[in-house]
Order: sequence, then structure tokens, then C-alpha cells
Amino acid sequence: MDLLKKTLADIKPLDEKAMDKARERQYKLTKPPGSLGRLEDLSIIIAGIQRQALPEIKNKAIFTFAGDHHVVFEEDIASAPMEITAQQVLNFVSGGGAVNALANHSGARLVLIDMGVATPYDRPDSVKDKRVGKGASNISRGPAMTRLEAVKALEGGIESVLEEIGIGLDIIGVGEMGIGNTTPASAIYALYTGADPEEVTGPGAGIDDETIKRKIEVIRKALDVNKPDKTDPIDVLAKIGGFEIGGMAGAMLAAASKGIPVVVDGFISTAAALLADQLSPEISPYLILSHHSAERGYGHAAGFMKQKPLLDLGLRLGEGTGAALGISLCEAAVRALKEIRTFDQAGVTDVTEL
Amino acid sequence: MDLLKKTLADIKPLDEKAMDKARERQYKLTKPPGSLGRLEDLSIIIAGIQRQALPEIKNKAIFTFAGDHHVVFEEDIASAPMEITAQQVLNFVSGGGAVNALANHSGARLVLIDMGVATPYDRPDSVKDKRVGKGASNISRGPAMTRLEAVKALEGGIESVLEEIGIGLDIIGVGEMGIGNTTPASAIYALYTGADPEEVTGPGAGIDDETIKRKIEVIRKALDVNKPDKTDPIDVLAKIGGFEIGGMAGAMLAAASKGIPVVVDGFISTAAALLADQLSPEISPYLILSHHSAERGYGHAAGFMKQKPLLDLGLRLGEGTGAALGISLCEAAVRALKEIRTFDQAGVTDVTEL
Repeated sequence: MDLLKKTLADIKPLDEKAMDKARERQYKLTKPPGSLGRLEDLSIIIAGIQRQALPEIKNKAIFTFAGDHHVVFEEDIASAPMEITAQQVLNFVSGGGAVNALANHSGARLVLIDMGVATPYDRPDSVKDKRVGKGASNISRGPAMTRLEAVKALEGGIESVLEEIGIGLDIIGVGEMGIGNTTPASAIYALYTGADPEEVTGPGAGIDDETIKRKIEVIRKALDVNKPDKTDPIDVLAKIGGFEIGGMAGAMLAAASKGIPVVVDGFISTAAALLADQLSPEISPYLILSHHSAERGYGHAAGFMKQKPLLDLGLRLGEGTGAALGISLCEAAVRALKEIRTFDQAGVTDVTEL
Repeated sequence: MDLLKKTLADIKPLDEKAMDKARERQYKLTKPPGSLGRLEDLSIIIAGIQRQALPEIKNKAIFTFAGDHHVVFEEDIASAPMEITAQQVLNFVSGGGAVNALANHSGARLVLIDMGVATPYDRPDSVKDKRVGKGASNISRGPAMTRLEAVKALEGGIESVLEEIGIGLDIIGVGEMGIGNTTPASAIYALYTGADPEEVTGPGAGIDDETIKRKIEVIRKALDVNKPDKTDPIDVLAKIGGFEIGGMAGAMLAAASKGIPVVVDGFISTAAALLADQLSPEISPYLILSHHSAERGYGHAAGFMKQKPLLDLGLRLGEGTGAALGISLCEAAVRALKEIRTFDQAGVTDVTEL
């Protein structure tokens, strides 16, 4: 609990001075002011997060947290067998997953964390062991985990980021792997955004309409049985969350506490962002939503966070794939801020001074 | 004229076999089918364009065509002095422009082409000389150029691409630099999409509302005085276009004729895309719109092309900046298609076969 408390205490408002300097610079670069649109805004926010007018994006990492969810198997609403979570972790280790391809594309290293994969597998040392349990319990019959386990999950996520800072960490992406984790994510969406479970529950990796109907009922039951206290995000995580969701929220807190921008992946990662946002009154500007997930109801969470995600490409895969694309845009934004010459440097007439 | 004719004759429909193979592969990769959304579609289209199931995106280039427009100075609707076109070309040569930063980010080389810059400047050899004239003539009083010059502009664009193929060219971005070129672009938008000039005319790099009103009248006059024949795109280019717009359209034709995907930049590049689309009944699928320009009326052109651009980040700079970001997404799409392992390779259960 001490690590969580300390991390929360260390999250400060963005550095306004660095942002002012970055904003001023944007107006001196050889382009019409504002013409790079959201890339300009992004560069200014990242300056504020990193507390430097000329931010650095060199060491990039995607953190992919894995965990399982018994609810979808016990209630027969799963899109795929539970063993796929473990199989995919091993696929990521050997470089064969979608997140590998896209992390490589954006020049980010992939950090894998086992938060609570249920299927036994031969875990390589390269996968961080932050296991809290063998999959989250059936949330339609009781809590996903104890309050102590929820704190442990958050702190596992915090530790995962802190351990990587020594290697270099200028920006992180946060994603997940966990068969069935749209179910707790939808429950968290419904709780915080006030949307009916029907509005924020979709097919996940692929279930038919009949199964979606049952999934909605499972989510209603999870909210009804557990009565999570929305003013207490640790209670929410414990009651209707999951180990990897806690890990992601913790990672977001840790990065923000160290002045590192967080690129949030998709539907499930944004559920973790909702929790992080409730845990810290200061974290919101540190969280950059990468893409509008194609999973039903995503817009409710983005709207609640008062953000428009950077991309809208119909992705609904998770793993950190959208975060990888978002990191690339953040890097583009920072390169533009740093590398475009000023009117003076370039010998180009500054129209705003004519 | 022979080069243009030959180029048009060489543009074939996409290779359906390569697309089928790429589509089949997408379904065998370790992810839920369709979960990478538009990245999957993009990879399949690029397979069809390159006529190979596993496309290659290694050699990337942004072609930035420069030219001037006397109309905006003679009619006093310019946002900036004409000399900035030449100054920016030199800024790009020395690596200081926005397009340099973003081309570098996407790993694309920058190819600069002078199609008709009016201000004398010391043109380095690295800038291709495809000059057709000293800036396009005032389109509100007569044609921008002669029909012969329009063909020359198109062929200058074609040559620019053909000359680069030996160096390696797997994908191109097409952008421009030309103070005042939103005026001819808006005229082309109005002509083809049927929108009123008021609906497709904005502030460009920055003019006030009064000047925008006069700009709209200039565009009405250009259409009225010249009466371009929309069934004859060479006539349209000659009457209400510009040298760099012709160069861009030519580059698009050349790339398509060689099986190279074309990433179209923003507002002005899309005017060139409209011309290319009219010149060739086959080119449309080769043209990938990179981003929804913030310039008023862009949506009319994208709608006419029946495309949703990849990005919507409020960019309105041109130069090829949006195309650079688009190229990066195309590369991500192709990497995902090629690098994600299949279920068999990865030892992951294929849910669709359960």
C-alpha cells in the first residue's frame, strides 16, 4: 500500500512553463501557426509531462499485462478457450504476435507481465512475474479478487514500470492480453460512465448475438451482486476488475509519477485508465488515448475522459497494438517540434510579423 | 503526350489473386479475424497494388512538388508573400521543413521537384527541374496555363517518379508547396464535387473572413471565365489548375502504372487526385487518402473519391506531412500482415476451427 500511496503522491500537474515554451516554439517554426493540428497539441502536452520544452522520445516501451477471467468460462460467454491467454504470451515472447509487429514498427520494446494467467505454462524469465492469482474470480457471483489483491495488482503494475526506468523510458504504451477481459472492462465502463451495460457491451474477440445478450446479463449481475463503490476505485478493481486491469492502472500511475507520457491502447486499457483517473486527480493529462476501439461502447469511456483518441481505424485487438501506433504519432509530434527550423534559422519570412 | 498516354495505358486493375492470398493470410494470423480493422484492409489493397501477396515497404519516398500562383497576388487574396514558396523549397533542401521532420520519422526520402516556382532562387541539383513556367497565370482572368503546358506538367510528374524507381520505390507520398494553391484546389473541388465554391473554400495558410469572401468570388470567376470541361481533365488542369497540381497528378499516374501505392497528402494533393481519378478509370484504388485536411470542404473531395482518409488530426499544412504519417500506417499494415505468425506457426489455438 505504501508504494501505491507514494506513487499517487508523486503525480504532479503538468509543467506549465515547459508547455509555454513548447507553445512559443511552435509559433516560430516554418509553417503556418496551428497547421500541424493535434500534433502541435500533443507535442505541448508531452513537453508538460516530461517537464522539458524539448521533449525526448527515444526509449519507447509497450507494457502488455496478461491475466485470465474465470467469469467468461463459468458463465459460458467466452469467445475462445482460456489457454489462449498463455499461448499468446508465449507467442509474444517469441516475437510472433500482432503487438510484436506493431511495437517493432514504432521502435518500442515489448515488456510482458504475467499478472495472473490461469493456464500453467513455461514462463520465460523475460516475462515479469507479478502474478496475483490464477485468474480473476467469477465477478457475476462475487468479487474478482480481494482488496489486498487489488492493491497487489496495482503495485505489480507500478513495479513493472519502475523496473524499466533504468533501461530508459521516455514514453510507454499500455495494453493487455486476457481472454474474456472485455467483460470486466464493460462492467467498469457501465459503472463510471453511467451507460447501461447494453450500451457498452460488444462481441469482444467474437461471440454471437445470443451470447452477447447473456454477457450483458452477466455484467448486470456483476454490478448487482458486488455493488462496487465507484468513489473507491480499489473497491471497483477488486469487485469487477481483473489482475491485468489493475496492472495497467498501476503502470499508468507509475509512469505519470515519473513524468512519462502514457499511451493507452483500446477498450480494456481504457477501463484501466478510468480507474487510474479515479485514483489520481492529476493523472488525466498524462493519459493519451491512442485509438477509438471498434468494441461497442468505447465512445462512452473516451467521452467520460473528455478525450478524442488519436486514431480511428476500426481496431479491436488490444495487446498494445493501438498504443504502438499512438506512440509513433507522439514521436512524430515531438520530432516536428524539435526538428522543424524556426523562421530565423531557415531564412523564411515570418508572415505573422509582416 | 506519348509518355502520358503510355502511362495511362499501363494502369491495370489491382491483382485480385494477390489480394485473395493476403486476405486468406489475414485469417490465419494469431488474432481474431478483422481485429486489426483498416490495417487489414490496407494490407490487402497494397498486396493488390504491388501484385504480391506479401508486399514490400522498404523504399519510401515523399514527392513534394513546388509551384506558384499569380492569381492570389494579382487579386490580393494571398496569405503570405510569393517568395515563401522558394524559401521553403530551400528550407526543405537543407532539412528544416515540417515535411523533413515527418518524412524522416516515417523513414521516407524526400524528393523535391520545381514545377514552376516564380521567385528566382539558387536551385540546388537535388531539386528536380521540371519547370513548366514562372508560376501559373491568374485563373480569374484566363487559363492557368496552355493545354501543352498542362501535359508538360503531368509528364514532369510522371518523369519524376520514373527517375526514382531505379533507386527503389515501394510506396510514395505526394505533397506540394505553393503559396496560394488552395485557390486552384478549391476551384477543382467545386467543379468535380458540384459543391458551391463557398463550401470548399477556407482560409488556407491563414486569411481573414473578408479575404475568404473575396477568394470565393475569385474562384467563381475562375470557373465562369474559363468554363473548364470537366470531362476533359487536361482542360481542367490547364484552365484552373497549377503546375505542381499537374506534377502531383502525373506522379500518381506513374506510380499506379508501376504498381506502387500512392499516399495522397491533404487538400491540394487531393485536388490532384481528383484529376488523376478523371484521367484514369483504373487509378482510384491506388490512391490512399492519408488524412482529413482541416481546410474547409475537404470532405467533399474525400466523399467524391468514396474514401475515408486514414487520419483526422486537424492537419492543414501540406508539403507531404500528412502523407508521411499515412506511409507509416501503410508500413505498419504490411508489417502486421507479414510478421504476425499464423496459428500453426505460433502453436496458438485457432478459434475459428474449434
